[in-house]
Amino acid sequence: MTTLSLIGIGTGNPDHVTLAAVRALNDADLILLPRKGEAKSDLVDLRRLLCQTLLREPEQAQIVEFDLPKRGEQGDYLGAVDEWHHAIAEVWASLMAHHLPEGGRVGLLIWGDPSLYDSSLRIAERLGAAGREVDVEVVPGITSLQVLTAEHRIPLNALAEPIQITTGRRLRERGWPSDAGTVAVMLDSGGAFTALPADDTYIWWGAYLGMEKQCLIKGWLSEVSDEIIQRRSSLREQHGWIMDIYLLAKQPLI
Amino acid sequence: MTTLSLIGIGTGNPDHVTLAAVRALNDADLILLPRKGEAKSDLVDLRRLLCQTLLREPEQAQIVEFDLPKRGEQGDYLGAVDEWHHAIAEVWASLMAHHLPEGGRVGLLIWGDPSLYDSSLRIAERLGAAGREVDVEVVPGITSLQVLTAEHRIPLNALAEPIQITTGRRLRERGWPSDAGTVAVMLDSGGAFTALPADDTYIWWGAYLGMEKQCLIKGWLSEVSDEIIQRRSSLREQHGWIMDIYLLAKQPLI
Repeated sequence: MTTLSLIGIGTGNPDHVTLAAVRALNDADLILLPRKGEAKSDLVDLRRLLCQTLLREPEQAQIVEFDLPKRGEQGDYLGAVDEWHHAIAEVWASLMAHHLPEGGRVGLLIWGDPSLYDSSLRIAERLGAAGREVDVEVVPGITSLQVLTAEHRIPLNALAEPIQITTGRRLRERGWPSDAGTVAVMLDSGGAFTALPADDTYIWWGAYLGMEKQCLIKGWLSEVSDEIIQRRSSLREQHGWIMDIYLLAKQPLI
Repeated sequence: MTTLSLIGIGTGNPDHVTLAAVRALNDADLILLPRKGEAKSDLVDLRRLLCQTLLREPEQAQIVEFDLPKRGEQGDYLGAVDEWHHAIAEVWASLMAHHLPEGGRVGLLIWGDPSLYDSSLRIAERLGAAGREVDVEVVPGITSLQVLTAEHRIPLNALAEPIQITTGRRLRERGWPSDAGTVAVMLDSGGAFTALPADDTYIWWGAYLGMEKQCLIKGWLSEVSDEIIQRRSSLREQHGWIMDIYLLAKQPLI
């Protein structure tokens, strides 16, 4: 029997890893490290570093790196995602068949937490169809959203108010969600907040959260919107990639 | 100078504590442990156990337990919360003055994460007015919401869809929030989900998440609503208190 452990590893700061994640990593017979192309190669480096730092006997662990299939850009978005998840499940299954034919424990390092805008659970669900039955277990990890609020020293919610977590695309299309005191935005390819009224929206922005190159900006959109867009663009050019998120409110939260 | 470290300790499972939280706990010159009355005394026990487990030299740490002031039940809700936060800040400030007159590092153990429906940041903001200037730092912790999704092996979001995190009171008053694919409900005093259509709402419910007495139920509301209400009531009677949360969707998530 094979157990697939989806291990939330936080945002790249090894201190944000939980004791349960350290144990799951050390218990794994096989650790799969996905590569996502050249641009984000420092993310693979970070995963390698985490393995080196957290494994008690790193030279004995069976760590296998593999290239993630690319998502098709033709057709509808959800259909392309569906095919992509299927292709990844096929790769996982064949790696398990090759490196762990008798079964055992497989560890997958997941940025942040496997529950939040991550596909691993949906891909794991397809392993049966790809020829490999597995038990799945999930080890929670600190999300970039938690590091954003920790570093800005703010709560996620206005007092007793609801929070909406949404995507950049959705914010652009629909504007401020009704019924939400605060709005957290992830997966924004850049500047979706410009769809909101700049005078009465406050933003707490962060890029590369938890990493050494972390960058934070906060203020009323009317004052910091341009600064964030420019900083984001220059950071992206400098590092070859960027991951950033932000929290929005109608007024300062504390 | 005094640094107040708000340390997210997760949900009671010592394995969910991060390496950063372990370090912050060990670096503290003074650890403040609030007591919340008899009914939830096992929560104080859990905090004591975490200190014993995670402190390298527990006999040398200065751990001070204190009774939380009670929230007034007169007047409007926000006004009562305001007075209550002020009263707690006064207690924190006087404990620091007494036990750490020269300044140093103060650690406060926070259930879950200091960002999510927790008042510590707002109380800390009042310490200046209560006569004690402090630097605040936040150490993120695993939330009960992350343990809920991990234990049910589900994502928090439907594919590419927004998530609303809200309170039981708000769900009762407003029903399903617009613009949300999934809804996570916290601080429900019981059964707020009965305000929703039972036939097309799926629930993943969990109580005492991360603890030994953890209890999980999932299914269409039409099938499990009564079971959850009854189980919640009997567990509450059995243990003297209960903490439970749930995630709702219009269809199974995987």
